[in-house]
Amino acid sequence: MPEPAGEFDLIERYFVRAGAGPAPRVDLAIGDDCALIDGGPDTQWAVTTDMLVEGVHFLASVDPEALGHKALAVNLSDLAACGAQPRCFFLALGMPRADELWLASFMRGLFALADGHRCVLAGGDTTRSAAGITVSITALGDVPRGRALLRSGAVADDDLWVSGILGDGALGLAFRRGEFTLAGDDASAAIRRLERPQPRIALGIGLRGTATAAIDVSDGLAGDLGHILRASGLAATIHWDAVPRSRALQELPVATQQRYVFTGGDDYELLFAAPRSAATTIESAALAAGVSVARIGHLRSGQGLVVLDSDGRAVDIAARAFDHFRHE
Amino acid sequence: MPEPAGEFDLIERYFVRAGAGPAPRVDLAIGDDCALIDGGPDTQWAVTTDMLVEGVHFLASVDPEALGHKALAVNLSDLAACGAQPRCFFLALGMPRADELWLASFMRGLFALADGHRCVLAGGDTTRSAAGITVSITALGDVPRGRALLRSGAVADDDLWVSGILGDGALGLAFRRGEFTLAGDDASAAIRRLERPQPRIALGIGLRGTATAAIDVSDGLAGDLGHILRASGLAATIHWDAVPRSRALQELPVATQQRYVFTGGDDYELLFAAPRSAATTIESAALAAGVSVARIGHLRSGQGLVVLDSDGRAVDIAARAFDHFRHE
Repeated sequence: MPEPAGEFDLIERYFVRAGAGPAPRVDLAIGDDCALIDGGPDTQWAVTTDMLVEGVHFLASVDPEALGHKALAVNLSDLAACGAQPRCFFLALGMPRADELWLASFMRGLFALADGHRCVLAGGDTTRSAAGITVSITALGDVPRGRALLRSGAVADDDLWVSGILGDGALGLAFRRGEFTLAGDDASAAIRRLERPQPRIALGIGLRGTATAAIDVSDGLAGDLGHILRASGLAATIHWDAVPRSRALQELPVATQQRYVFTGGDDYELLFAAPRSAATTIESAALAAGVSVARIGHLRSGQGLVVLDSDGRAVDIAARAFDHFRHE
Repeated sequence: MPEPAGEFDLIERYFVRAGAGPAPRVDLAIGDDCALIDGGPDTQWAVTTDMLVEGVHFLASVDPEALGHKALAVNLSDLAACGAQPRCFFLALGMPRADELWLASFMRGLFALADGHRCVLAGGDTTRSAAGITVSITALGDVPRGRALLRSGAVADDDLWVSGILGDGALGLAFRRGEFTLAGDDASAAIRRLERPQPRIALGIGLRGTATAAIDVSDGLAGDLGHILRASGLAATIHWDAVPRSRALQELPVATQQRYVFTGGDDYELLFAAPRSAATTIESAALAAGVSVARIGHLRSGQGLVVLDSDGRAVDIAARAFDHFRHE
């Protein structure tokens, strides 16, 4: 889930320790969308954890069924970004009081998504939490050994692709906050994108062996692409006109659209790199997965991200991000 | 961690669904100390989750280093109860603000325990949590396939054993709350038992193939033994004089001692069943693990728990539990 940038960067620094070597049966720890642990000679488990807190990621008035969906979806989206098949999840749930109606609705949303992916609740913990609802989920999926998609692995001249459309997560949030109005259909579409993101599991699995690097877009395209660029040691060029956006988003001023796409977050689409020769394979995988994909740019040697508008001029992404924080 | 009984029972009912069959690669879901998932032809992963919430499990004034220790210890104790070797854990941490001093101390306590068991932090999530600190940990350990200790599996005439001493977790909590005074050494011992429980990993591993059932004592002997009795379909007799207690605890009125032992919780010792013929094996395993063990009773066919005092009279455990809730 998107976080105010900055202060929590320092926390993650405390999670990684200099000199901590490899550990038995832990193949990849910290720094990618999932950790990888030994699942036998032929497979690895991809494992991810996300915590959602009332007042930060959702309001007390949230539809509990939507919250149940989203709490699992953000974890499954991390599994999708690794190309893993979801198998099970663990739920830790803090609630101010045991509200049966709320809980039944929350679990309904959670199980509907879980069942759709044959992902079972394998364990959990419940506790009182006087200050508000807290949901922490750890999800596990498996992937053939050595075939997990990572943030690293992309090479210069790879194409950059995204699934679905970007920016509607932020659009839905702005609409929820009453920042502007939307027509009925557009409103429900944007809210649906914000509250019911669909983890791109089938696409992630279809990209095994084809994508050279992948991540899910949860914090905005600029930040999440930045993770791939740093992990792969590359720079990128994106063509703004090629970035897929909803009709509703395209009616807003371009600066707002760019802010939502690059720094908005909550889209839960896949961003991935692949060699040019893989375009047909990717389009077939997307078709099979029932998801649209779009080629939005390419990678190159160097550092940093350049976004070109339709006139070939560079867009000032930093200024868009600044707008974002100024308005928070 | 101990919870006010009752209202949260209903929550766990929502976690278990009628008709939910077995799932691919998930060997055991919900209802034991750990879930078991496929770790390859020869092994299984034991997985457990616990959430600790400020104001419920600890106060804002808690020593962060002790909290770091305990948050991991309660999870490793579940792995110990399954006979699993800890390998890695995932940390989700909510904090009102990024307090570097607090965080450094918390992680120091956490890593000190983790390093002692060669258990690595494999992933995590950090978030703002305006209302207070929330720590959710998922820990994974491995166990040879089919050798995990479960709550089920005990048979009539098995002996009942516990490791270490019982009741000092509750004693430490009562002392912290200022309910009575303790002499210096006794005070620090009780606080240490409350705040720095030592998961009985080596003992759990040593009991593989010997113990027929096991659980960790986190909610008091009565409740946790009850889980074994229900899962194994048996009754139990415990001899009060055989229950190992600290000298400090034995100076309190017997009714208080029994309340702390049977309904107090926070002891994190292992309670396990084994055939009489295994006594020597168990004592050797305990010696090798550097932990004391005591035979406190036995299992029999039927239902329920009988506790006999030194005169052979039945102790009214329900009345002790009632005292407990009345004084909350």
